[in-house]
Formats: sequence, C-alpha cells, structure tokens
Amino acid sequence: MNEPEAPFANVAIIGLGLIGGSVGLAVHETMPKVRTYGWDADAHVREVAAERNLAHAIPANIDDAVADADLVVLCVPVRAMESVAAQLKGKLKPTCVISDVGSCKKSVADAIARQLPGQPIVPAHPVAGTEHSGPEAGFASLFQNRWCIVTPAEGVDQAHVDKVIAFWRAMGATVETMAPDHHDRVLAVTSHVPHLIAYTIVGTASDLEEVTRSEVIKYSAGGFRDFTRIAASDPTMWRDVFLSNKDAVLEILQRFSEDLTALQRAIRWGDGDALFDRFSKTREVRRSIIEEGQDDARPDFGRHDHGDAPGAGMPGDDSD
Amino acid sequence: MNEPEAPFANVAIIGLGLIGGSVGLAVHETMPKVRTYGWDADAHVREVAAERNLAHAIPANIDDAVADADLVVLCVPVRAMESVAAQLKGKLKPTCVISDVGSCKKSVADAIARQLPGQPIVPAHPVAGTEHSGPEAGFASLFQNRWCIVTPAEGVDQAHVDKVIAFWRAMGATVETMAPDHHDRVLAVTSHVPHLIAYTIVGTASDLEEVTRSEVIKYSAGGFRDFTRIAASDPTMWRDVFLSNKDAVLEILQRFSEDLTALQRAIRWGDGDALFDRFSKTREVRRSIIEEGQDDARPDFGRHDHGDAPGAGMPGDDSD
Repeated sequence: MNEPEAPFANVAIIGLGLIGGSVGLAVHETMPKVRTYGWDADAHVREVAAERNLAHAIPANIDDAVADADLVVLCVPVRAMESVAAQLKGKLKPTCVISDVGSCKKSVADAIARQLPGQPIVPAHPVAGTEHSGPEAGFASLFQNRWCIVTPAEGVDQAHVDKVIAFWRAMGATVETMAPDHHDRVLAVTSHVPHLIAYTIVGTASDLEEVTRSEVIKYSAGGFRDFTRIAASDPTMWRDVFLSNKDAVLEILQRFSEDLTALQRAIRWGDGDALFDRFSKTREVRRSIIEEGQDDARPDFGRHDHGDAPGAGMPGDDSD
Repeated sequence: MNEPEAPFANVAIIGLGLIGGSVGLAVHETMPKVRTYGWDADAHVREVAAERNLAHAIPANIDDAVADADLVVLCVPVRAMESVAAQLKGKLKPTCVISDVGSCKKSVADAIARQLPGQPIVPAHPVAGTEHSGPEAGFASLFQNRWCIVTPAEGVDQAHVDKVIAFWRAMGATVETMAPDHHDRVLAVTSHVPHLIAYTIVGTASDLEEVTRSEVIKYSAGGFRDFTRIAASDPTMWRDVFLSNKDAVLEILQRFSEDLTALQRAIRWGDGDALFDRFSKTREVRRSIIEEGQDDARPDFGRHDHGDAPGAGMPGDDSD
C-alpha cells in the first residue's frame, strides 16, 4: 500500500479510561508511525496509563500533551467536554482537528464550539465499550468491526472530516456519518434508554423488603443478570449522557412507559392475545440482529463455551 | 457408590420442548437405568423428539406414556398444565408422583391438585433455559450447576419430596425448597418483570417513526441487543407466566414504574447527584452476582472469545 499510513502525525488523547486507553493501544497497533500523547486529570490514572503504555508520552500538564497535536480526541464524560475544551484555548495549532468519543453529539459539539471557535471540530462516537471502565479496561481491538458514527458540524472542511473517518477506519471501525440530532435520537433508543431501564430494575430489585438481596442474586439467572451487566457501567459517564441527551431520552421513555402500561393492563385484565401478539413481534427483531451479525446467535451468548460442556460454565441461565 | 442410582424407575415427560427435551437427555446421561417415556400434543414435535432420542418411547397416545410412570414431569406452558393434568385422570399408578417445571408455582400446583386429587404432587422449577425453544433446543447439561426450586404442597409425604430432590440433583442441579408464594415473588423480580420490560422496550423501538428499524438493528450493540435476546423467548410460555403470576408481577411492575418515574424526573430537572447515586448502587449488585458465580465476569460475557482476537467476533459492543 502506497497511501500514507495515518491521517495525522501527532495525536493527543485526553481522558485515559476504557475508550481513551483503547484509542491509544489501537493507534499503536494499527498506525505505528503516529506519535501519541495522553493526558488525564487524575494522576493515578496517568500512572496506570504509563505502565500500560496507553500513549507514547503522558505529561503531567495538558498543555504539553496537545502542543504538537494534529488531532485531539476528547475521551472524557460528556459533561466534562466543555471544561476540558476551555483548557485548550490558545494551546492548539490552528490546523489541529478536535474530535471526541461522546455518546451524545449535539450538546457536546455545541460545548466544544463555544470554547474553541474557529478550530475544526469533527465529533465521532465509536459504538463500542464494555461494562468495565478505567485505565485498566482498554484493549487495542475494541473498535475492530464496530460502528463509529461521525457527526461533522455544518461548514467544517470536508478534508478534516475525511481524515477523522480515515483515522477510525484505520483502527478497524466501520464509519457512518449522521446529523448530530439524528444520532442522539438513534442512540437514545438503542443505548441510553436501555441503560436507564437496566439501572432502574436493578435498583428496584435491591430495594424490596419481601425478597432478600441474596435471593435476587442467587436466582438472577432467570433474566435479571443481563440487566445487571449494563447497570454496572460507569456512573459518571451515564449520568452525563442522560443529562446531555435529555430531550430524546425523555421522549423515548414516555413511549416506553405507555407501552409498558398497555402490557400491564393486558396482564391485569387477562388479555392473553395482546401479550402473545407483542411477544411474537419482538422475536423478529432478534432474528434481524442475528442476521446482520450484530450479536452472537449461540444460546445465552455462548456464555458456557468456556466450560467443558455446553452449560457447564456456571449455575443458572436465562429465559425461565 | 452403592446407593440406588435413580429415585424413579420409569419417568414420563409431558411436553418435549427446550425443558422437556433437556430432562430426557439429562436422565439418559445421568441415570442410564431409568426408562423414559415422552409425549407432546404436537405430532411434529414427537417426530423430532424421536429422531433426537429425547425419550426411550414416544407413543402417540398420552395414556401409553404415563401408564407405567413412577414420576410424571409436566413440561408444558403453565396455563396448559391443568388441561394436561385433566387428561391423566384415572391413568396413573396411585403412587405416581406428579411434578412440573413451570415458572410459576402457586397457580400451577392448585391447577394440578384440582384435576388429580390424592396423587402426590411435588412441583419444581429449574431456573435454567435459553432463548431458544422447541424439541431441537434441549441439551443434556442444561441443568448442570443450575438452581432448581422445589415447592412441595402442604401435607405431601416427605419421601416423595426427597425423591424429586434426588432426581434433580442427579441431573446436576442445586436444589432449594421454598413456599410456592415466595417462589412466585422471587421469580417475579429476577425473571418475569425483566422479561416483560425487555419485551416492552424491544416493541417500543420497533414502533418508532423517526428512527428506522434498520438503524435500531445496526446500532443495537449500544445496550439494546441484550434486551432483544430475552425478548426472543417463547411467546406462549411467557404469556402464560404473566397471566399466572399476575399479582406478584403487577406489584413489582408498580414499584419499577415508580422508580423509573423518579429517575425520569431527575433527568428532567437536571438532578445529576440523584442519578449518580442510583447508578453507583447498582454496580454493587453486579459485583455480588459475579462473586457468587452467577455470571461470567469477562467483559461483554466473553461474546468475542470465539473470534481470533478480543473484539474480533462481531461489530458493536455494549455500554456506550
């Protein structure tokens, strides 16, 4: 391949948690000529990040991390983006592209633009992650075959957009571009509201008087434990997501509540046909997700495949 | 070991779906001297079951399946239990123990007792399953290291209870006994309400106008796809569960709705502390579930472990 191996020579990663750390490791693996700089507000995080080589240089001062950068990727919780952007004022090369990895795009893009007017801004959202967080959690292949949604601001130079797209493609992601508003609606449905619901039911279950916490844990294999996994995600990140994508989240929640009330009413009045119809439709959605390669078709996600027999992995299982 | 290898000589399995089929295969593997009889109302299911050897004999007539039985295990949807029990009137040996595998215990035990008064009844609920259903779905190790909850009716001979417990232990389950009412409350929390919520959100997402079905599927890795898995479970089984465990399900749903409303209000009014507190607590529940060996600690359930690198399995991942 004769094409240049990387769209940016110097990349600064601000925030070295699961996503920031994975960006560093992925850049090192897929674009070895790129020089990476990392920074995190937390000195302990910087220390762990240095041990794990999440970036080539991890200075104590944010100014030193961004001075040479051709691309700055902000990997902090979405409500921290604005104050971090404020710290970068007057510290960047004029051609330096600002990007981020936030789960909400409209409010983040606006916040960065307020602080860094004139700087090229090309927000991105890699739809990737795990329930683990912190500088220990990242790994180089996190973005391989994952979607990354790029939401360019109006009027930004297409050359900058193309370079950000090339950057994510180099790390293995499949890139789509989308308007920021539309991104926020889509993610409210596929990610934000599911997380809020998971957090809620796990909280409801912990607060019961008649059923003990230990019973909930013991019999969690009946379906509950899938919710606990996503309800174990980083609390700061998710608090920020809900506050930043308020309108879309509240709208989807309202629809969800109406739909739940309808099923609740069907249960109360013994309307088995309404329940059956609804439950049959949702099966088709699962089928499409499997067909499109968006999830594992093996029963129970293949959870037991690391045991010596199917099902030998651990006590309890789903759907019953 | 000099102890008798199996508590029952002849076992009849009525209903040859995921659970019934797995019981047959598990008996053959763990209690090879036991003679099994299988029956299903659906001739096609009987045919597939015979091909897969889910039972030694699969007669077309239910009478022939139960005539010699020392144990009958009813493995049909919970609202079908009563009509199946009615077909067994006068067909059983007086000492034959009736058990079942239903996900609700109180209403099922009452229904069986109405139809078969005087017969020893020892209901059981193996907390095991996958999102797949039908006679192709079962496997012998389904109950290995899973919980099985036995809910003996008042006044039933302890010798019968002990034999049913021994039967499930032989198949690898860890058995607990519980009052039927309490079982129904515990499972409402750990299984029934989580399934209803999953069915609801998957339905809500499919019905949106502004976000297309294909976008929902494409970006489902953000959290949504975990819900689609449990919302792919058997519609008949789940319709029956909700109608049969109505009171406990409605009570937990009411609490869930209150909790969700509180979080919704916190989002609307920008109360970040309330959100953060709630999200931090639920993390602890996950930790306990991992510590008690009730789920896989690997990120994302180890979904990607079958690829050539972590994350190589499929596009998209959770928690973002």
